[in-house]
Amino acid sequence: MSYRLYYWPGIQGRGEFVRLALEEAGADYVDVARGSDEAGLGLPAMFRRMEKGRGASLPFAPPFLEDGDLLLSHVGNILLHLGTKHGLLPGDPALRLVAHGLQLTIADLVSEVHDTHHPVATSRYYEDQLDEAKAKAAEFRRDRMPKYLGYFETVLERNPAGSDHAITGETTTVDLSLFQVMEGLSYAFPRASSNLASLYPNLSSLRARIRARPRIAAYLASERRIPFNEDGIFRRYIELDGDPS
Amino acid sequence: MSYRLYYWPGIQGRGEFVRLALEEAGADYVDVARGSDEAGLGLPAMFRRMEKGRGASLPFAPPFLEDGDLLLSHVGNILLHLGTKHGLLPGDPALRLVAHGLQLTIADLVSEVHDTHHPVATSRYYEDQLDEAKAKAAEFRRDRMPKYLGYFETVLERNPAGSDHAITGETTTVDLSLFQVMEGLSYAFPRASSNLASLYPNLSSLRARIRARPRIAAYLASERRIPFNEDGIFRRYIELDGDPS
Repeated sequence: MSYRLYYWPGIQGRGEFVRLALEEAGADYVDVARGSDEAGLGLPAMFRRMEKGRGASLPFAPPFLEDGDLLLSHVGNILLHLGTKHGLLPGDPALRLVAHGLQLTIADLVSEVHDTHHPVATSRYYEDQLDEAKAKAAEFRRDRMPKYLGYFETVLERNPAGSDHAITGETTTVDLSLFQVMEGLSYAFPRASSNLASLYPNLSSLRARIRARPRIAAYLASERRIPFNEDGIFRRYIELDGDPS
Repeated sequence: MSYRLYYWPGIQGRGEFVRLALEEAGADYVDVARGSDEAGLGLPAMFRRMEKGRGASLPFAPPFLEDGDLLLSHVGNILLHLGTKHGLLPGDPALRLVAHGLQLTIADLVSEVHDTHHPVATSRYYEDQLDEAKAKAAEFRRDRMPKYLGYFETVLERNPAGSDHAITGETTTVDLSLFQVMEGLSYAFPRASSNLASLYPNLSSLRARIRARPRIAAYLASERRIPFNEDGIFRRYIELDGDPS
């Protein structure tokens, strides 16, 4: 049976971290909200599914994933499930939790990226919180982005199995997600990201390797990969990217 | 062997969600940074431990928990581990992931509470981001807090095993964490929280039941429970709590 992924159509957003894992796994999945109403898919199907969750299975927000009877919310949680099933996380349960910790740090980074353009309220227009966004983005570029990327660079550097992966000597959902983070930051902050390759050589070569993996390369070249745009998490707003150097 | 919990001394903060689980489990643990330098504990011990993490075990930020050779970061991840070991999560692995999803929604709520007083930069003084904090807190009180609490109220309401618990008919780390959220919101936003009992009857009675559990009651009465204060996540700043009604 196919997985059913529920996420906003038209953006990569948080759903993209799940899509990359599904694609790398070669898993069969339906991207529900991107389907047509006629096929019983589309946004109405997503809203219906959100409403009918029983108790703890009620999702707070997309993305969520349906795997048979199981409905899981949160990117990290979904990837813990998919990674375990599809060999994209360590087989050792203890190491799997360690990997999950990295994944949750990535989730925090993604939230901070979101807050660079919506520091006050997700529900309000970007233009109505522009001053706050400029302050938040400046802080992100100066302090948070180097802190996060420096951290992951060190994680790669110190991996006893070699710096090609975040954990163990195999490709995990963490590696796939770090690829997406590097892609997203380069898209959203081209100036602030201009020297990523020299500052973070391990992350940069990981990014190149993931991009070249056959299933990921095929996915990126397909229509299933939505281009970055200014409705997603990683948005290119030149005024949030600092002064030209 | 004891667990070793690493978190900032002097605040409840995110560490408190872990402390509540350790206390309810009756687990033996050392709250490392709160110990004395002479005993090889205190903040220097925490910083030393942060530095020496190998690869993926390198913590990004406190809290982190040491369980023998295992070092785990992130509240949700630590609770997934502790809850599994100590019967504070469902025995069924699928339900455990569903519970973990709830825990990650709580983590998001906690981050939003933090951002009400530090919307621009964690590294800067509250006073230097006061205007932004007022805007963020107003949004939180009006939109986000009801959204989160309404969501958890519905989760309790729809629990097929009864509304006394978030998931299954047993006490889980999710219940303990919801108790802490209710305590924290009531402390930080006394005006905005004045009607929690009538708006969220299930959450309110869960809160009372958790507070009365013998180990939790003993913990709350002990010196191990740090009082809420204005260095933690839940801070009482009257100017962030809206107008008197």
